[in-house]
Amino acid sequence: MKKLINNPDNVVRESQEGMAIAHPDLIKIHLNPHFIYRADAPIQNKVAIISGGGSGHEPMHGGFVGMGMLDAACPGEIFTSPTPDQMLEAAKTVNGGVGILNIVKNYSGDVMNFEMAAELAYSESIEVLNILIDDDVAVKDSLYTQGRRGVGTTVLAEKICGAAADQGYDLKTIAELCRKVNLNGRSMGMALTSCTTPAKGSSTFDLGDDEIEVGIGIHGEPGRQRISLKSADEITEMLAISIIEDSSYTRTVREWDVDQGEWIEVELTDPPLKSGDSVLAFVNSMGGTPLSELYIVYRKLAEICEQKGLQIVRNLVGSYITSLEMQGCSITLLKLDDELMKLWDAPVKTASLRWGI
Amino acid sequence: MKKLINNPDNVVRESQEGMAIAHPDLIKIHLNPHFIYRADAPIQNKVAIISGGGSGHEPMHGGFVGMGMLDAACPGEIFTSPTPDQMLEAAKTVNGGVGILNIVKNYSGDVMNFEMAAELAYSESIEVLNILIDDDVAVKDSLYTQGRRGVGTTVLAEKICGAAADQGYDLKTIAELCRKVNLNGRSMGMALTSCTTPAKGSSTFDLGDDEIEVGIGIHGEPGRQRISLKSADEITEMLAISIIEDSSYTRTVREWDVDQGEWIEVELTDPPLKSGDSVLAFVNSMGGTPLSELYIVYRKLAEICEQKGLQIVRNLVGSYITSLEMQGCSITLLKLDDELMKLWDAPVKTASLRWGI
Repeated sequence: MKKLINNPDNVVRESQEGMAIAHPDLIKIHLNPHFIYRADAPIQNKVAIISGGGSGHEPMHGGFVGMGMLDAACPGEIFTSPTPDQMLEAAKTVNGGVGILNIVKNYSGDVMNFEMAAELAYSESIEVLNILIDDDVAVKDSLYTQGRRGVGTTVLAEKICGAAADQGYDLKTIAELCRKVNLNGRSMGMALTSCTTPAKGSSTFDLGDDEIEVGIGIHGEPGRQRISLKSADEITEMLAISIIEDSSYTRTVREWDVDQGEWIEVELTDPPLKSGDSVLAFVNSMGGTPLSELYIVYRKLAEICEQKGLQIVRNLVGSYITSLEMQGCSITLLKLDDELMKLWDAPVKTASLRWGI
Repeated sequence: MKKLINNPDNVVRESQEGMAIAHPDLIKIHLNPHFIYRADAPIQNKVAIISGGGSGHEPMHGGFVGMGMLDAACPGEIFTSPTPDQMLEAAKTVNGGVGILNIVKNYSGDVMNFEMAAELAYSESIEVLNILIDDDVAVKDSLYTQGRRGVGTTVLAEKICGAAADQGYDLKTIAELCRKVNLNGRSMGMALTSCTTPAKGSSTFDLGDDEIEVGIGIHGEPGRQRISLKSADEITEMLAISIIEDSSYTRTVREWDVDQGEWIEVELTDPPLKSGDSVLAFVNSMGGTPLSELYIVYRKLAEICEQKGLQIVRNLVGSYITSLEMQGCSITLLKLDDELMKLWDAPVKTASLRWGI
């Protein structure tokens, strides 16, 4: 295993300490339990946005803490869910008195622990709503997930909800907004190579010299198919068409009913993309794929969107939700309306996403 | 070879076409000869800043074209110098009537071709000055270079000179500023793995499973030593101490004498870093190393700088000057004064570096 690390046990802590040292104007680190939070938190009368999940996907989530995006990020060990005590302490630290939105990627451990954290927060009179991101069209049910996995749309939801919180949206409205982003967003990824977690020290999975995995998860979970290497254009087409032609997806999610004070089951259906829609196109590196290759993917994606009558009105190209040094990419298409576009354009100042300020 | 590409012959063009499609508000692409330039060029009465070099180092240079940084970037094929006709046509396209600064990394091919381009531009009455970046302390003379190679300081010089051009500096003053940045900047890199150019299709060089190359160049040129894998802290210390304890370096460079209308030889010496200096600390990924590992390096670098009496007042952490998918990192320390800091902080809006706007 060749990595720029010291003791494998300390990778997450040392990396996040480095972040905090590099960006003291933006973030602070809290240890025992471990989370990153805005240096100017808590901000009174602003809904706080928290996310978190296993580490190894950097810059998500710690790199998105700051003005106009997250108030706190709770990192687990690499590819391992964070624990409820991290989420609870983060909630108490950034609580501005008007509630907290937890943006939760759909992995069983994350879902369970964020639910427990919400209950603990309620018992301390902090109002919390959890919204699930489950945008990966590749597979239904996976290694660590019931239903679709949460991937690229998470980054976009964090940006958009962070802007809404800045603009004074209340908790319930931000939760509805986050749900809308999730229902409007679809993603799919692929891997050219595996990755190696420091704890294991060897490849997470094996992939032949001429093989790629299409529909892979961000922890190397199996995708739709393992096929021989294809051209960038062919790969882009496989991902883009799967996303664009994905039909309505209906799932039942557990959400906290504020009025009843209990968990209820809610059925949600996302509308399929259709010709004439405006979209944000997000081409993401799995970590080890260089930017130059992402633009080759973007070039083909733009052509396909045009053929399908989708107008790309915003985009994001780079490494935002990664799997350590895995080579490969993911594509996310988020249907935009005027509200989402305005919130996307709003100023943001974090370690890894910044504009307008 | 596993890459997200189509025909290896078209990698550079397709990638840059993707960039131009993704960022039409910022850049345009010119083909035959090939360069990327600001969408709003030429800007009258502003010195234009041009850079270029072999491709494979993205986002450098195309990702740095835009407001507050480069006016044009001339890409060669991967790890291959661009040609004088690209540079000349770029100069004619972005010429705002008050001269052009070419920022040239010290590789023999780049130097020769940018010199020829400057002469051609003069013959068309466009005033051009070339400033060399030769900041890599690892080795003197290398595979493609006489003297020290030009690496990380290039990114910083492009940002700082771009801001100066925006603020109305004249050509001669910007050239002096660029020279100051180069003399104040020092870098050194290392590789955990090799990289593969699409044209060759196999590793640029071989590195054993337990080996790293310290002092490597951005094309895989040999560094100072090949040693067994070390911890991130040990590697950071090797790079940082080499940079901090580097003594004065004196070189003779060829610069165009505007008044005489001929090339003259100029002797330049960079002052060593000393306790009490303020620095910009730049930790850069070679392409395939994830952001999380860069912050582990930054954590140790900050500790070393503090021990050595260097105050880090600005920083940059990410993938800015890369070698395709090579794993590894480089460190650059740039001594800052008030002028450089003010220009660094000025707004910039490019595909890959953006703040303040």
